[in-house]
Amino acid sequence: MQRPALTLIAASLMLANGFAHAADAPTAIPGTAVKTAEQLRDKAMHDDTAYKVVESLTTEVGSRMAGSVNDPRAREWAIAKFKALGFDKVYTEPVTYPLWERHSEHGAIVAPFPQPLTLIALGYSPGTPKDGLTAQVVQFVSLDALKAADPASVKGKIVYIGERMQRHKEGTDYGRIGSPIRVQGPVIAQAKGAAGFLLRSAGTDANSRTPHTGVTGFTDPTKAIPAAALSNPDADQLERVLAYGKPVTVKLDLDCGIVGQYTGYNVIGEITGRKYPDQVVAIGGHLDSWDPGTGAIDDGAGVAIALGAAKLIHDLPQRPDRTVRVIAFANEEMGLWGGRAYADKHAAEVGKFQLGSESDLGAAPVWRMSASVKPQARKAVEQIAKVLAPVGVAYDPKRPGGGGSDLSQMHQKGMAALTLDQDATYYFDWHHTANDTLDKIDPQQLAQNVAVYAVFTYMAAQADGDFGSAPGAFAGDGAGD
Amino acid sequence: MQRPALTLIAASLMLANGFAHAADAPTAIPGTAVKTAEQLRDKAMHDDTAYKVVESLTTEVGSRMAGSVNDPRAREWAIAKFKALGFDKVYTEPVTYPLWERHSEHGAIVAPFPQPLTLIALGYSPGTPKDGLTAQVVQFVSLDALKAADPASVKGKIVYIGERMQRHKEGTDYGRIGSPIRVQGPVIAQAKGAAGFLLRSAGTDANSRTPHTGVTGFTDPTKAIPAAALSNPDADQLERVLAYGKPVTVKLDLDCGIVGQYTGYNVIGEITGRKYPDQVVAIGGHLDSWDPGTGAIDDGAGVAIALGAAKLIHDLPQRPDRTVRVIAFANEEMGLWGGRAYADKHAAEVGKFQLGSESDLGAAPVWRMSASVKPQARKAVEQIAKVLAPVGVAYDPKRPGGGGSDLSQMHQKGMAALTLDQDATYYFDWHHTANDTLDKIDPQQLAQNVAVYAVFTYMAAQADGDFGSAPGAFAGDGAGD
Repeated sequence: MQRPALTLIAASLMLANGFAHAADAPTAIPGTAVKTAEQLRDKAMHDDTAYKVVESLTTEVGSRMAGSVNDPRAREWAIAKFKALGFDKVYTEPVTYPLWERHSEHGAIVAPFPQPLTLIALGYSPGTPKDGLTAQVVQFVSLDALKAADPASVKGKIVYIGERMQRHKEGTDYGRIGSPIRVQGPVIAQAKGAAGFLLRSAGTDANSRTPHTGVTGFTDPTKAIPAAALSNPDADQLERVLAYGKPVTVKLDLDCGIVGQYTGYNVIGEITGRKYPDQVVAIGGHLDSWDPGTGAIDDGAGVAIALGAAKLIHDLPQRPDRTVRVIAFANEEMGLWGGRAYADKHAAEVGKFQLGSESDLGAAPVWRMSASVKPQARKAVEQIAKVLAPVGVAYDPKRPGGGGSDLSQMHQKGMAALTLDQDATYYFDWHHTANDTLDKIDPQQLAQNVAVYAVFTYMAAQADGDFGSAPGAFAGDGAGD
Repeated sequence: MQRPALTLIAASLMLANGFAHAADAPTAIPGTAVKTAEQLRDKAMHDDTAYKVVESLTTEVGSRMAGSVNDPRAREWAIAKFKALGFDKVYTEPVTYPLWERHSEHGAIVAPFPQPLTLIALGYSPGTPKDGLTAQVVQFVSLDALKAADPASVKGKIVYIGERMQRHKEGTDYGRIGSPIRVQGPVIAQAKGAAGFLLRSAGTDANSRTPHTGVTGFTDPTKAIPAAALSNPDADQLERVLAYGKPVTVKLDLDCGIVGQYTGYNVIGEITGRKYPDQVVAIGGHLDSWDPGTGAIDDGAGVAIALGAAKLIHDLPQRPDRTVRVIAFANEEMGLWGGRAYADKHAAEVGKFQLGSESDLGAAPVWRMSASVKPQARKAVEQIAKVLAPVGVAYDPKRPGGGGSDLSQMHQKGMAALTLDQDATYYFDWHHTANDTLDKIDPQQLAQNVAVYAVFTYMAAQADGDFGSAPGAFAGDGAGD
């Protein structure tokens, strides 16, 4: 439906006079805010706050798997860092989840050519019996091939799926191959009677013996089998051995499993809004990491980007109109526990969330932006896009905006959200491996991310009008696909 | 001194008539042999024997550290492979050395920021006490800085040297930085009273958490301290922690050490010479590897290149004039044990060694050739170089030829030798790490190496005249520098 031109004029007058914004009037970002956003962008490109934050986190805490000894250390670090950066309010919210522990893991080809295999247990994998699990390997080329398999061919065996991820700027194969095989593969194998599960690591580092961990889809510990990922060269080796055509026996020794429940915390910091303190722009990353690396790109970078962006806004002469809320989520890795707890707790206030987006794809530059907002806010999104274009961000008006990993849960409740796609070309070389370390972060690329987050956060905070957040507002926008 | 032209003509006549070659006449390679060498070269470029050999070795045996359970497996594999390829003679010669075993290794920063360190024990390192070695770290920027250090600053501490290797086609920094720090560093640290030794891995993989093992210079187990290499990112991390300026305590748990003596074997195969069976062209590689990888580039490739080259010569319509001897050396890695045993045993026959060169720098293309030969054989070397130029090999007449790793020992006894430099740009990314696996070998590049070895081996075997091998012939040629 078209609105009469008169309404538009009236709305503009109301804005100019500081009146409340009519709900169906176009959302717009005032020229002064656009100018400030441009300055924030340019300042961010030369600001090293975020790099110092991720350096501090990865050096002083290191790996911080949910529920591990480093979980409270990371929490204390985050609270101290929010405070040191001058946030107006710092608080935590509890997140309870199953506590999965990893103690050790070993694998070996027993026959026909005995040799060790470099592998890593997957999240929620149970351990093997004390003397290990030794069984014949049955190979599948894809998840579909496993789905189609006769259970008789799988029963009592170790299922191995060898499909390989290719490198893409969009990280396409993680969603298409790596993640589904790792998450669903073990569950399907267990249902068909398999004794264990192996996959070729969900990673694009074809030549590195650093296997990729990650969560499985096991939800019931009584229906779970030992599951691990082989490094790419070890997967190649297993396939070469299988190609001899003789039965191949593998032994898995995994000491890991769920040992109880744990309560961790989302750590939240706010720059309080001057005009509308109860309305929030939500940004963040997740504080937990997998354990083999130091969680630099996943997701120290995301936490640092959000903190760096908020700090730049904090340092402006006056507080933004709306509150900037930075959330460092707990336990994203084992199933969005922090994001789900957050969304469950705050669902009723979804209308107060002006806009949100979480960074959780490393530290390479943002190259594409998309949004799920109400139609009347498209112009405001275009205003944001215009400020971001000079740092290499292309706006795609046809794609939805999902809000990122944990914040996807608030988006599903009805929060207007952006998707800020980072270049994923190399991300899956290091993701969930020992190689997720600080050296993978280019400070200049990280700064570009900070610029993007500072710009959209500030512009959304200063907008005249909202972006359409409301209970159930964006159901079916395709962002969760 | 110039020889009269008449002598040259006489020599040519003698050659044409099959007379023995005068000792001081120029060595030359007959035109028919040059043609055959060109055919061998072109055939080699499309021959996959060597790739199949290294695939077989790395798949069926895998890692084969000297004295490990895979040492006899590798030996049996080699004997069977020589025989399967049709060598006329296959035999072994014993090599006795200290047996060093690795069981496990762990490292951690204890204070101020507790976290694990990815490291690997070095060859001949003793183990730590059962409850580990915990000590403060003292950092040095180079081996020279350690040499200059006051022992009081080192006593009871863990010495860490952080100098970083840069990438070079010639692998320069391994000889300049990596190897001296790893070999001499622990010895110097021990002499100054250090409790332990750590280095930044001798490797160019700046971003990979796969530390590089390798031998130390420890010769007396009573004067040895626990010594290990940190991966490059772990070295970065330790240096970041040290940069906070607080005392940094590290704990090493190494379960490794010398447990006795072991007798392994050089495995030798021959294509028997038709005219001069007692004169040999010696080529080879080393059969042992370090344990974290499968020893593909170090030195499955070398063994495969030599076997592939010999096999092409074997398949010619008739046997070469001289014997082609392929030596798969035992225990190169812990101090040229195989090469030294070989040279000690065969020193008296050095004059029978027509020419020799071992391949032990991976599987990237040979780009430079140099030789240590008598002056009268320079023309023959130029003939070889001319056949190799089309596959990318540049002849440098000013550099000596050292014969490669183990065969350097025969060269030091007086064997004429070539150096065939491979492109080392990426070699030290993977050298002595878990990443030394088959995927690092490009079959086409490997084939180029086979072409080079087949050409020089055949041409040397067919030469009229020798290359100057004699006891002590090349002392001071600089090849051992």
